Amino acid sequence: MRRLIPIVVATLIPFTLSADPLPSWTDTEARNRIVAFVDGVTDPDSDDYVTPADRIAVFDNDGTLWAEQPVYFQLIFAMDKLAESDPSILSSPTLEAAAKGDVEGIAAGGKEALIEVVNASHSGLSVADFQTSVAEWLDTARHPKTNLPYDQMTYQPMVELLRYLRDEGFTTYIVSGGGIHFMRVFAEKAYGIPPEQILGTYNDSTYEIVDGTPTIVKAPGLAFIDDKEGKPINIDRTIGKRPIFAAGNSDGDFAMLEWTTAGTGPRMGLLIHHTDGEREWAYDRDSHIGRLVDGLDKGPDLGWVIVDMANDWSRIYTGKN
Amino acid sequence: MRRLIPIVVATLIPFTLSADPLPSWTDTEARNRIVAFVDGVTDPDSDDYVTPADRIAVFDNDGTLWAEQPVYFQLIFAMDKLAESDPSILSSPTLEAAAKGDVEGIAAGGKEALIEVVNASHSGLSVADFQTSVAEWLDTARHPKTNLPYDQMTYQPMVELLRYLRDEGFTTYIVSGGGIHFMRVFAEKAYGIPPEQILGTYNDSTYEIVDGTPTIVKAPGLAFIDDKEGKPINIDRTIGKRPIFAAGNSDGDFAMLEWTTAGTGPRMGLLIHHTDGEREWAYDRDSHIGRLVDGLDKGPDLGWVIVDMANDWSRIYTGKN
Repeated sequence: MRRLIPIVVATLIPFTLSADPLPSWTDTEARNRIVAFVDGVTDPDSDDYVTPADRIAVFDNDGTLWAEQPVYFQLIFAMDKLAESDPSILSSPTLEAAAKGDVEGIAAGGKEALIEVVNASHSGLSVADFQTSVAEWLDTARHPKTNLPYDQMTYQPMVELLRYLRDEGFTTYIVSGGGIHFMRVFAEKAYGIPPEQILGTYNDSTYEIVDGTPTIVKAPGLAFIDDKEGKPINIDRTIGKRPIFAAGNSDGDFAMLEWTTAGTGPRMGLLIHHTDGEREWAYDRDSHIGRLVDGLDKGPDLGWVIVDMANDWSRIYTGKN
Repeated sequence: MRRLIPIVVATLIPFTLSADPLPSWTDTEARNRIVAFVDGVTDPDSDDYVTPADRIAVFDNDGTLWAEQPVYFQLIFAMDKLAESDPSILSSPTLEAAAKGDVEGIAAGGKEALIEVVNASHSGLSVADFQTSVAEWLDTARHPKTNLPYDQMTYQPMVELLRYLRDEGFTTYIVSGGGIHFMRVFAEKAYGIPPEQILGTYNDSTYEIVDGTPTIVKAPGLAFIDDKEGKPINIDRTIGKRPIFAAGNSDGDFAMLEWTTAGTGPRMGLLIHHTDGEREWAYDRDSHIGRLVDGLDKGPDLGWVIVDMANDWSRIYTGKN
């Protein structure tokens, strides 16, 4: 019996190696550096070898794994919900603007307006009811520019990168400013990332007996914002290890990449630079969403890979538009 | 090639089944109900079958996986640290009492005194330095009654149960009122539970550049208490699924067991009842630590298994005392 396992391995390896794990990445420096990094940390004979338990990879979501224009998709969901709701809950000019679909008005109100709108769309709902509502929205809503379902505006090259890393023994986490309950509705199907590997922003919750049933209910107060310094803090709290790979696209991800790549041994920081105004959107230093200044100024000196979407990706969305 | 895999499976299964997975459990109802539950959820032909991804098992730590008398071991650590520290930081009667090892005095001060002492023992330390300090303490400190290292006062039957569940496709989590950074120092070696499967109480943290190095620093404010209703709330936030198995020993675990066993399909709630005054400690309704009233009064009607330590366990500690 001892010879059975070597035979199985010998027949599977050539098959695995023959498939290109990153078909939507063009043959540029970005792709080559990713593959070289993965080859190093997975080669037991390399000085860069990292044991699978420590192959932790963290990814921002909005603008890194799926699109984020004209505004965060969770905000579009919240505005759609407010538009359907009883007008009596529109108790402020911000909420009235949201219900009318006034994206510019909400964007001008900054983070406070965004939080007010998102909060109003779910407070008092059980987690289960909220997630049913998100699932229904994803099934029916279409993006105004691409006409795609929002969960098909995931970036195909990043979906491939996630799968490639997992195939190479990494554990892949989302660490996003988006809401945990919102992301968990689609992330397993869209990215192959299960609920327990999704970190994000969360509201207060209450534990209540509703009609005799123990229930987790979403409450209005914001308990934790998973952005900027909050990202490494949340990773430390939840994962308890410093990642060896981090990907983001905005200055909200700077601290996460900085902390990740400051560790000893092989590290990789990856920034998605939105350079493709034709197939996606081109934005960085002056954008109200996904502002990227520090990452462009300091990232290259810190050894981070800056992905040029227009040149480095042969395909953008997972969905066909 | 298609016949190779069935052959391998057929030779391994009889070998696996021949070993008793729970040798420190006596042949009583508690053990039999645990085994029947696991057999049901892992049998693909059973109506009770649960897919491995949903086999989530959560465990309290203090009093459930290791002992908690005369007080929580993390409090003993904190008091030992204060006793070694510069007297100038002993800025209150509570901290002075702690530095003198006055366990009764701290216990009389309730949760507030406990939090003050634990906070004072680590604030301003980086997570890495704090964990080095915990590791050194575990290497040298001995329990006043058993003379064992604290991390050998884990319950051998529960260590076996954790391993048994994982062997049967469960993922095992700690969900404890203890501190996350404290538990992660010993839990992987003691229980086989890695850092990312440890939920608990946590303080505020700051992200700082210390001498040029990005560092997570423990700050004084208490950010989240993982006790009572906090346990199901934290499980929902971090794991994102309702467990099918929950184990605890005090009323601080009531909500976690209630929420777990209220789900549809097969569920198990397990309460460790400290009935063994000879080999361990006997305490429940009137104890200042691990108070158990609601669990004893309502647990049996909710179908929970009440483990009688004196009768159901043939051995208590992992370490030999």
